[in-house]
Amino acid sequence: MKFVCTQHDLNINLALVSRAVSTRPTHPVLANIKIEATSNPDLIRLTGFDLSLGIQTSFMAQVDDEGTLTLPAKLLNDIVAKLPSGEITLDDEAGENLITITSASGRYQVRGMSAEEFPELPSIEEGETNQLSAAAFIDGLKGSLVACSQDESKQVLTGVYLKVEPDRLEFAATDGHRLGIVEVYPTETETPELASEEQASSASKGSFEVTVPAKALRELEKMLGSGQEGDKLAVQLEQGQVVFGWGERKLTTRTLEGKYPDYRLLIPKQFQRQITLDRKQLLTALERIAVLSDQTNLVKFSINSETQSIDISVDSQDRGSGRESLTAQISGEQLDIAFNIKYLMDGLKTLPTQEITISLNGPLEPVILTPLGGVKMTYLVMPVQLRN
Amino acid sequence: MKFVCTQHDLNINLALVSRAVSTRPTHPVLANIKIEATSNPDLIRLTGFDLSLGIQTSFMAQVDDEGTLTLPAKLLNDIVAKLPSGEITLDDEAGENLITITSASGRYQVRGMSAEEFPELPSIEEGETNQLSAAAFIDGLKGSLVACSQDESKQVLTGVYLKVEPDRLEFAATDGHRLGIVEVYPTETETPELASEEQASSASKGSFEVTVPAKALRELEKMLGSGQEGDKLAVQLEQGQVVFGWGERKLTTRTLEGKYPDYRLLIPKQFQRQITLDRKQLLTALERIAVLSDQTNLVKFSINSETQSIDISVDSQDRGSGRESLTAQISGEQLDIAFNIKYLMDGLKTLPTQEITISLNGPLEPVILTPLGGVKMTYLVMPVQLRN
Repeated sequence: MKFVCTQHDLNINLALVSRAVSTRPTHPVLANIKIEATSNPDLIRLTGFDLSLGIQTSFMAQVDDEGTLTLPAKLLNDIVAKLPSGEITLDDEAGENLITITSASGRYQVRGMSAEEFPELPSIEEGETNQLSAAAFIDGLKGSLVACSQDESKQVLTGVYLKVEPDRLEFAATDGHRLGIVEVYPTETETPELASEEQASSASKGSFEVTVPAKALRELEKMLGSGQEGDKLAVQLEQGQVVFGWGERKLTTRTLEGKYPDYRLLIPKQFQRQITLDRKQLLTALERIAVLSDQTNLVKFSINSETQSIDISVDSQDRGSGRESLTAQISGEQLDIAFNIKYLMDGLKTLPTQEITISLNGPLEPVILTPLGGVKMTYLVMPVQLRN
Repeated sequence: MKFVCTQHDLNINLALVSRAVSTRPTHPVLANIKIEATSNPDLIRLTGFDLSLGIQTSFMAQVDDEGTLTLPAKLLNDIVAKLPSGEITLDDEAGENLITITSASGRYQVRGMSAEEFPELPSIEEGETNQLSAAAFIDGLKGSLVACSQDESKQVLTGVYLKVEPDRLEFAATDGHRLGIVEVYPTETETPELASEEQASSASKGSFEVTVPAKALRELEKMLGSGQEGDKLAVQLEQGQVVFGWGERKLTTRTLEGKYPDYRLLIPKQFQRQITLDRKQLLTALERIAVLSDQTNLVKFSINSETQSIDISVDSQDRGSGRESLTAQISGEQLDIAFNIKYLMDGLKTLPTQEITISLNGPLEPVILTPLGGVKMTYLVMPVQLRN
């Protein structure tokens, strides 16, 4: 294998696939990145795979000798990141798994391993493919990932439930304390001139539902967020695996088994109280008084429709107390209710609009946060019982 | 105690004195900051003290009631940092050690402790005071702190040896592997129009030598570096304590006991070889190949005066190898010599000039790095024996 590429191309692509390389690999070859050099067209393909999450990317290079090899991910990354910009040559000379990296600054040799033991990424090219809007997909991830459970014993809750229907996507996640739901309609694009193209490309080839690990979706969110690869995201599902493809890039992940809970049942049908207020103002007030909260993370809201104001307060035995007052449009009777301040702040951070609506019933019933306009997002948070 | 000040003033001064608050205090009151409010003139004085390092600072405020109190450093810092800019009021009302912080955003209460148990900072106002140039002092710290020992069992080597003479300051530090010496002449100011003023202020009131803990000097370097308090640094020494004062600020520290080694004996009188080269070019080459070095941190130099070039290389069994070649002005015979790459990089980072001189004798004798022009700085590094 021998090829010449720019330091920039190799550097950014190595950084990308390294996100799928395990820091505690179960087999030595899994600490490595697989490098494939093919000609006609001259392409370098890099793969990182921790047996659950896989990332693959390709870029153009001048390939002098085709070949495949694996190299230590961290070491290769560290070397290439520090090289000066310009052309660099990778050459395994006698095919001895010893690669020589030559740049204007000098020569570096790194020992690799044969690619034979490197597991193949799942590939489902025969299956059905759904073409989605990448921007809509990012919206869905933003509103749901925040509510995923961190508790590995609740396997299916550590992922995002994804429901793909013709012209409609639904994302949901819950850890039992809060629930995030986002509905996106990829045809309702925000750039009207693209509407017809979007409509064509979102012509779904099929409906399915799947629960995808949060870890993989967080990587996908980051990669799509850098957003240099256009607005199309292909999704393929097959027994136990999902493949996301966009541009020259591909992310594969195992899916989570088990039936996802019927979260729609949690959402109250009607509300006795409704508050409309400035999201940022509430969030910064909570951030200030959160400093004074103790391990219980308890924050108390006194909602007063007569004064059209909310008093929020934190009282902790050993740290102190803080109280702030906010004006809001409030309908319904006076209510005292308490929350886990972190769960509330998480939700407020993900809501995309300046104003939001908070819908409530009694002090122990689910509370719903929704943006005023924009994307169809629901953030449900369970109150915490107040001791007298 | 009751006073009104700006969020900005309280915030930056709290952050400053918090650096002297222990994260693992031996007594509860040492987790606190002491706040003194005095009138005529209206001043707030803050003090942090971990029994070794002390920092004190003052700022103007509107003092309604004089008083003294201590408050938890971290909690107070966290609250004040998040408050909106503008005026804030601190009030301990009935003197109950419960302070109420009122800002435009709301009210926060924090429990403090009486200042009675808070130890007094060392104060040596009757002793001799030396007035030094803060800029010259920073130069001295930069070139010496890097060579301090991290080994707490070698007490005196964990500090910087400071020799104050009329019109001359010498800083030195060594950990046994390298040695940093800086001589500064505060009267030789770089801004000629200030020369006469400098000369007057540097009129030393006495000569002394002292070894000061590196930790305290690193804090002093950071605080002087922010450089909004003018160019004068007062230094007072008394049995076991040094006090540095500038503007409204004061840093006190215990000194290190024990005789500092006679480091001048380590510096060779003459050299058989001399190299002049670009400092940055050598440093970036070392940074690249350092990636390939193993725990030995060994880097090999092949110095060739015929080709006027230096080959630098790293070979590690398990990671790989790297080599680069640099051009340099070289006098003396060919030499192979090896170094700890980290010690070499540390020295190159502190030297202030574009070009430097490396002076050598044999492969096992001390090597000296000096800047070409500028401040009088010497960085000595011991070579490492090469196995065949």
